[in-house]
Amino acid sequence: MNQYKVFFLPDQKKIEVEEGLSLLEATEKAGLFIQSLCGGEGVCGKCKVQIVTGKAKIDKTALPFFTREEIEKGYVLACQMLVREDLKVFIPPESRIEEEQILKESFEMTKKEWMESPPFQYSEPDWISLHKRPSDPASLFEPLTFKVFLNLPTPTPDDNIPDTARILRELRKKLKFADYEFSYSSLKELFLNLRRSDWKVTVTLTRQNDVGKIIQIEEGQRVNQNYGVAVDVGTTTVVAQLVDLKTGRVMGVEGSLNLQSHYGEDVLSRIAYVCGKGSLEVLQKAVVENINNLIKSLTKTKGVKIDEITSIVAAGNTTMSHILMGLMPCSIRDDPYVPTVDLYPKIMAKEIGIQINSNGILQVLPSISSYVGGDTVAGVLACNMADRPEVSCLIDIGTNGEVVIGNNEWMLSCSASAGPAFEGGDTKWGMRATKGAIQKINIEKDEIIYETVGGVKPRGICGSGFIDLLYSLAKHRVLEIDGKFSKSLRDRRLIKGDHEMEYIIAFPEETEKGETITITQSDIDNLLRSKAAIFAAIKSLMDYSGLSFNRLEKIYVAGGFGNYLDVEKAIGIGLLPDLPIERFEFVGNSSLMGARMVLLSYHVLEKAMSISQSITNIELSKFAPFGDEYMASLYLPHIDRERLFPSVKF
Amino acid sequence: MNQYKVFFLPDQKKIEVEEGLSLLEATEKAGLFIQSLCGGEGVCGKCKVQIVTGKAKIDKTALPFFTREEIEKGYVLACQMLVREDLKVFIPPESRIEEEQILKESFEMTKKEWMESPPFQYSEPDWISLHKRPSDPASLFEPLTFKVFLNLPTPTPDDNIPDTARILRELRKKLKFADYEFSYSSLKELFLNLRRSDWKVTVTLTRQNDVGKIIQIEEGQRVNQNYGVAVDVGTTTVVAQLVDLKTGRVMGVEGSLNLQSHYGEDVLSRIAYVCGKGSLEVLQKAVVENINNLIKSLTKTKGVKIDEITSIVAAGNTTMSHILMGLMPCSIRDDPYVPTVDLYPKIMAKEIGIQINSNGILQVLPSISSYVGGDTVAGVLACNMADRPEVSCLIDIGTNGEVVIGNNEWMLSCSASAGPAFEGGDTKWGMRATKGAIQKINIEKDEIIYETVGGVKPRGICGSGFIDLLYSLAKHRVLEIDGKFSKSLRDRRLIKGDHEMEYIIAFPEETEKGETITITQSDIDNLLRSKAAIFAAIKSLMDYSGLSFNRLEKIYVAGGFGNYLDVEKAIGIGLLPDLPIERFEFVGNSSLMGARMVLLSYHVLEKAMSISQSITNIELSKFAPFGDEYMASLYLPHIDRERLFPSVKF
Repeated sequence: MNQYKVFFLPDQKKIEVEEGLSLLEATEKAGLFIQSLCGGEGVCGKCKVQIVTGKAKIDKTALPFFTREEIEKGYVLACQMLVREDLKVFIPPESRIEEEQILKESFEMTKKEWMESPPFQYSEPDWISLHKRPSDPASLFEPLTFKVFLNLPTPTPDDNIPDTARILRELRKKLKFADYEFSYSSLKELFLNLRRSDWKVTVTLTRQNDVGKIIQIEEGQRVNQNYGVAVDVGTTTVVAQLVDLKTGRVMGVEGSLNLQSHYGEDVLSRIAYVCGKGSLEVLQKAVVENINNLIKSLTKTKGVKIDEITSIVAAGNTTMSHILMGLMPCSIRDDPYVPTVDLYPKIMAKEIGIQINSNGILQVLPSISSYVGGDTVAGVLACNMADRPEVSCLIDIGTNGEVVIGNNEWMLSCSASAGPAFEGGDTKWGMRATKGAIQKINIEKDEIIYETVGGVKPRGICGSGFIDLLYSLAKHRVLEIDGKFSKSLRDRRLIKGDHEMEYIIAFPEETEKGETITITQSDIDNLLRSKAAIFAAIKSLMDYSGLSFNRLEKIYVAGGFGNYLDVEKAIGIGLLPDLPIERFEFVGNSSLMGARMVLLSYHVLEKAMSISQSITNIELSKFAPFGDEYMASLYLPHIDRERLFPSVKF
Repeated sequence: MNQYKVFFLPDQKKIEVEEGLSLLEATEKAGLFIQSLCGGEGVCGKCKVQIVTGKAKIDKTALPFFTREEIEKGYVLACQMLVREDLKVFIPPESRIEEEQILKESFEMTKKEWMESPPFQYSEPDWISLHKRPSDPASLFEPLTFKVFLNLPTPTPDDNIPDTARILRELRKKLKFADYEFSYSSLKELFLNLRRSDWKVTVTLTRQNDVGKIIQIEEGQRVNQNYGVAVDVGTTTVVAQLVDLKTGRVMGVEGSLNLQSHYGEDVLSRIAYVCGKGSLEVLQKAVVENINNLIKSLTKTKGVKIDEITSIVAAGNTTMSHILMGLMPCSIRDDPYVPTVDLYPKIMAKEIGIQINSNGILQVLPSISSYVGGDTVAGVLACNMADRPEVSCLIDIGTNGEVVIGNNEWMLSCSASAGPAFEGGDTKWGMRATKGAIQKINIEKDEIIYETVGGVKPRGICGSGFIDLLYSLAKHRVLEIDGKFSKSLRDRRLIKGDHEMEYIIAFPEETEKGETITITQSDIDNLLRSKAAIFAAIKSLMDYSGLSFNRLEKIYVAGGFGNYLDVEKAIGIGLLPDLPIERFEFVGNSSLMGARMVLLSYHVLEKAMSISQSITNIELSKFAPFGDEYMASLYLPHIDRERLFPSVKF
């Protein structure tokens, strides 16, 4: 087969590929990240690249994605363009996933949330309060792996019990487990370890029910060399924290784009890849590589040895968790939406290729259902919802919006397919919250005042920008209550575009590429569908519980999106329920926080399992009232504004 | 380095070896088995071979092992003779370990003991009595690995729990464990297994405390394809039984010489090899190869697939168990005699290279101390000593003689270093009970009547022959009470040998090689030391317990040696206590029987662990009265004959 050279601009990366490979696959090979919401199916139009040298080919079906100007300039969809000759290719900024920025952002958020004002305090000694509620079963600090130093008496004729019995005799003085087990690998070197160290050893244990499992025995005093990693395995980003398991302190945090992004942006396209033409192994390897890279970087920065990391806890949605564990996610996608596993067994991290101590363990947080995963369980843990008598609500707004309500006696969960409109998909100028994204918008008279990420010229609009925009458009009657552009309005910004009405947010002279950034009627329809799905999900759970919204004493908003959200405007468009603003709390990356809590406490792990098993999950597609709630929510803010959104004033 | 050819007779095996290799190592390479009690140290004189072509060299230190005639015929010690030229070597029958015969013998014994009159009966269904005592905790038949068939309901929108939860829901209807765990490997193929098999699967479980561990999930109904292997890992022989875990039936049994024999005959020389110039890995691989070969042969004969074997249970002395598990046995040899492990963890069989189902487990029986191992625990189980109120005694006569006394409330154990005199070592004409060994002797007037193994011309004397002989010599006053040849006796058989007095058992014309088979004064001294050590061990335990011999209602005699023993004569020489003959019972290979009981019942495994932990082991070297008892036992039958051996009449 012929080999061709592809030269990527502006990165100046040159690679050689086999004939017939798609340009999307070629970027991946070159280590470049470009957007691909649909996973290379040619239907999202996000992977536009420009053929600078070579013959550009566009499928007829892809034509609607391009302007005349773009076609003339040689723009193509990278996923549809196959390499048949040497090419020079330019990747425009809007097609690029900007790894560095997402990274930094995650870090800043994490740092702010956990480093400066951690939700719980740690101090020596080992046995301290995690949550400061003595009655809370999560009140014990007991990391999933912990080390105990033993200064053993040397054997004598009067005391010649076996080495293992000698270790257990001392351990029993220090720990209170009903029983102990030695892993085979902990025994292999035991004879030498004991004798070379003059009977001074450090034992690493992990707990399973009432049994202390001895996974490692090291020579000498190594109690202070014990670290763990908490990982949020998001569909888009993977964020890892390095944690000192002796003190509970967070040593550092880093994030990266999920390398699986090459194979589709959302869980459904990842499943389609695994269960269709692709393979589970490829996606598993990708995310394991993410995690290994983060661990390498964190340990290098912090002067920690890989071998000193004895446990890792990962939280992710059900699909991400299945893929990480190497389990087929195919049945998640199809009615009746059955995952393979809910309670993931604790395994050796090396079994799936994660590089920590060779005896180190991996615990993946349990999931609730096919679309309510371990990340949601982690959120429930982080908000401590399941241990308090007052009823609260957790909302994670994403392509799938997960909602949990409940208290220490009952919990309900559901997931609504909201679509990617708030995440940069399904809209003409939508983008993620990376540099150049309009994230805040206010309309004053005829003027539009906006802020972009990074303060640069705008390149598109991200989720929080769309919420502001919808709110302002509704308030100024640009939009009718049904979300349609007002027929009677005369506004220089409201224009007739190629196929439909569009509203101009930024004129060409304001934007980076000299193009007109607009919101179209279709965009608004998609955004309304997204917000309707989420609100209807919350409303359905409340109705199922028989409680009114007012009974919610706390509403936790999770996800990267949350921090930039203007709650008042989110209520104004009918995305969030109409409750006093002080009841809302942004919990940031609660998935990572929950993962770390599990890492630091076996009791929290037990809690997580109990939440996973006791929560009642409502399958909205089978819950008849949801359809009506959804239809009623396709308005600004809602068809039943009087009753449900009395405080919204426009 | 030069290569030389070595041609072995009478096997006609030709091999090429590097210069400087010993002939002992060369035989090993050629796949021939020759005796080597000392492990190639040149001190036992058992590995004599004849150099037919080539230059024979004998070390000065080895001269005492040879007759003048042998030296003239070119006999050498194979372990001391290095290959420096092409050689033709004859291996005489007395130097050979006859694999085939030992094999057959073991098989016959096993067949007789277990196939024709099994000690417990099995029948369908699964939950049946093992021992027929309802109050016995061992009364439940519950194999270490067992299979359960599940016909699962297909998921529906109203019943869309995860695959694992669906399996557990059905399992909980059939089993009563408090909790369940899935092994990682059982989950890997679960998605496909369930869907390919139309939701009909067979689950393989193993129990750990109250937890059912799911180790395998197969498609379809596979309940009847479940087999286990019980192995007696003896220092000399390895015997394996194939057992149907569905019915408890023994399918077949095979034995082979322990391939470690190349590296020394007894445990001390094996330890010396591992902890000196050799390696643990070599010996571990050797015994694993033994086991794998036996399994291959058994499965082939019985039409069972390797993959259908889901568990293996091994019993051996502490050294054999350590080496099998890949654990250093070095501290077993040195004061204060500390083994690494007493309770061996259940591991994956493949972790040490045993080839059964890749998810199959290996359980090694727990040991009691450095010199009282899992084979003794197995013996206690096989004799059901620990569950009965009456006091009984188990005696395993070997190079190390293990003794256990006790009942359902208390147990004592000890080990006495008896030396190899009863096993063919430490005596001029001693040999194992293979073809040509004199195994029964009676002296009538001047006539000696003997029987040999296989009925052929005698080649030497084995243990049971020596006991008969000592008895007859004492009875006929050839020996004084102190074991010395009578000074006053005139007997044509009593001659002056090279260095000392010898008594002729077989004249040249009677023997295979035309040599005179004798027993020397040194032989008798060694035999007395052996029997004194064993009797003193029994006596010490009885004294420690404060009970008289008469309280022993059963005396179980274990070991291959046992079956050929004449109890009356063994009492007569003071080896066994003077009790009514009907109280003695030969239990054959009780190690293998105990291993199989564990294989067939988790409750018996728990019993084994409890025995290992609760038995009081007396270290005879530290037990002051033992020395006196030993001295008093160096007589025929005993210095205190009136009180201890009143029934002995000669």
